[in-house]
Amino acid sequence: MVQQDVELKRGLRDVYFESTQSSYVIGDIGRLIYRGYDIHDLAAQATFEEVVFLMMKGHLPTSAELDEFDSALRREREIPQEVMEVIERVKDGHPMDVLRTAVSALAAFEPAVGDISHEATLRKGMKITAQTPTIVAAHHRIRTGQPIVEPDPSLSHAANFLYMLLGKQPDDETSRLMDKDLIVHLDHGSNASSFAARVTASTLADVHGAVVTGISTLKGPLHGGAAEGVMKMALEIGDEANVESYLEGKRSRKERIMGFGHAVYRAEDPRARHLREGSRLLAEKEGDPKWFQILSKVEEQMRPYAERGICVNVDFWAGSVYYLLGIPEDLFISIFAVARVPGYVVQILEQQDKNILIRPQIRYDGPMDMEFVPIGQRG
Amino acid sequence: MVQQDVELKRGLRDVYFESTQSSYVIGDIGRLIYRGYDIHDLAAQATFEEVVFLMMKGHLPTSAELDEFDSALRREREIPQEVMEVIERVKDGHPMDVLRTAVSALAAFEPAVGDISHEATLRKGMKITAQTPTIVAAHHRIRTGQPIVEPDPSLSHAANFLYMLLGKQPDDETSRLMDKDLIVHLDHGSNASSFAARVTASTLADVHGAVVTGISTLKGPLHGGAAEGVMKMALEIGDEANVESYLEGKRSRKERIMGFGHAVYRAEDPRARHLREGSRLLAEKEGDPKWFQILSKVEEQMRPYAERGICVNVDFWAGSVYYLLGIPEDLFISIFAVARVPGYVVQILEQQDKNILIRPQIRYDGPMDMEFVPIGQRG
Repeated sequence: MVQQDVELKRGLRDVYFESTQSSYVIGDIGRLIYRGYDIHDLAAQATFEEVVFLMMKGHLPTSAELDEFDSALRREREIPQEVMEVIERVKDGHPMDVLRTAVSALAAFEPAVGDISHEATLRKGMKITAQTPTIVAAHHRIRTGQPIVEPDPSLSHAANFLYMLLGKQPDDETSRLMDKDLIVHLDHGSNASSFAARVTASTLADVHGAVVTGISTLKGPLHGGAAEGVMKMALEIGDEANVESYLEGKRSRKERIMGFGHAVYRAEDPRARHLREGSRLLAEKEGDPKWFQILSKVEEQMRPYAERGICVNVDFWAGSVYYLLGIPEDLFISIFAVARVPGYVVQILEQQDKNILIRPQIRYDGPMDMEFVPIGQRG
Repeated sequence: MVQQDVELKRGLRDVYFESTQSSYVIGDIGRLIYRGYDIHDLAAQATFEEVVFLMMKGHLPTSAELDEFDSALRREREIPQEVMEVIERVKDGHPMDVLRTAVSALAAFEPAVGDISHEATLRKGMKITAQTPTIVAAHHRIRTGQPIVEPDPSLSHAANFLYMLLGKQPDDETSRLMDKDLIVHLDHGSNASSFAARVTASTLADVHGAVVTGISTLKGPLHGGAAEGVMKMALEIGDEANVESYLEGKRSRKERIMGFGHAVYRAEDPRARHLREGSRLLAEKEGDPKWFQILSKVEEQMRPYAERGICVNVDFWAGSVYYLLGIPEDLFISIFAVARVPGYVVQILEQQDKNILIRPQIRYDGPMDMEFVPIGQRG
């Protein structure tokens, strides 16, 4: 055995691999900044399209700039018929596997697929951003035997997504809630999937490939899968009266409570409050307050753990919002992807603009100097 | 502007992120080790299937073990009809984009897709290994209007790949050359695509997703694209007599010579010699010595740079081998992928067996405390 005398940085937790000007996660005080703006200001006052412009172009748009940008996004929502046929072929797969396959397939219809200039990546990245909701919605309609709903260019990104997915135009309040959800999920420092997308881009692979990497990585339960888990927990609890005994059981079995704690935040996840408010509003509107009440009680019961940095995270409330919107649980990660895909594009652009190949070292701890014995002579 | 006072490790070049027992690249002396065995012993004496067994299971197989393993691989070569139809839909894409899309699509036909136990990952990883050559070959036959060639279970992995791709059974010498090519390309420490595949696996995403990430990343010209460049150079030179003036022109324009230098090797890439020998043999057999002569002359002329660590790398000779086999240039990276996919599986297994989420930090260098001005009031 050989063991090189080098320090391991397993998981790269404290290693800074690059600098960024797009998003800033200040974990100890629970703040999230997009290009200098506080996430609370953006969630309260901006639209998703406005924030995508901010992130991709570096500044907030004027009305004229936003009109042009938004029109470009609305024009690009359709996907080629061949990609629709690809979705049909893989319709029984997990929605994230189908999304990954369809985005990968889009590359075949992009004439400038290998062009990694800033301009080309931005243009292609905007197009993938516009097409992602169409793929998620079309797949869901196909797998449930419902007719596909064509994109409606009169609707915003968020409203059109809900319309294509659920088959009816959402009211303004619901659209705005989805809009906020997409804003707070757009970017988040060196999260695992954006980091993986950067590794792909660092070999000078193109934006389609790098976004596919992001989607592959987001699917993992340690990354994109928690919202689904929280709603499963709420359904398992079933009634506000059962919260205490449920949590007690979990504690005695030393099991993790879904939707608490985060790799970076030691304070409350700043994204959570917008979804808590959304969950409350939806519960009121739908006349179905049960899930909001159950989750509020869970949050209240978990408060003592906040001192130890185990706070509510964004997934805690997101699941109940999606559930009340009538979205099935196995689509929760895909909604996350709809929001995060433009975030990948932003980070891929940054990586390409000052590229360096991302290639760490790995320590070899295996055997050495093994003598090769031909197969006929092996015992 | 904010600037956190932290050290940047751009590209992570000197950072050890994990330990491995699979492959060991000793750059300064030009050695490559697979589980303790020297690559030269394996290339000379083992078959690709034997080496895949060694890498996946950790030891060289007995004859009985190899028979069982090889039979399992031969049984799994076919791909679902739906995936064949996916390939037809995207046939005009770059072969690596098509391979990525088809491997992604395979996930929809895997009943245990989300199972990340060692056993399940190994089984699924063997299946993807067996299916990858089928995808590459079928796509090439479809895009060139030739009938698809079904896998032949009487042929080895390498021979069957050439048979499906080119439509005729290769002779033993040619099969053995492809076998060696696949062996030397199988694994290579923390290369960018295997590292990216590990990042995906570290979120507990499944092996299909992690392999898709690997393929996305391999496509980049800084990673898998160099063999294509070397053969383009040889074709551009056109004749042995032009080598000196060609290289002089390159030097005066300070352009890079393809196929020289490596991120890790400061000595000759140990994989190169096997492909040089293959290139020589093929040139003799095909009665077409021109490309071997041109490349030999380039290598000779570049010898002075070897002292500065700029040596021939694996891509230098690989391109001429593929060219003489009659394989078109845009498929060169796909051949690399056929070899490297089982390498991804090996590293994904290692990552899963002692998993930690790979999530480095990124330094925020952007603006702070920007005041949000509503869109109607922006200048």
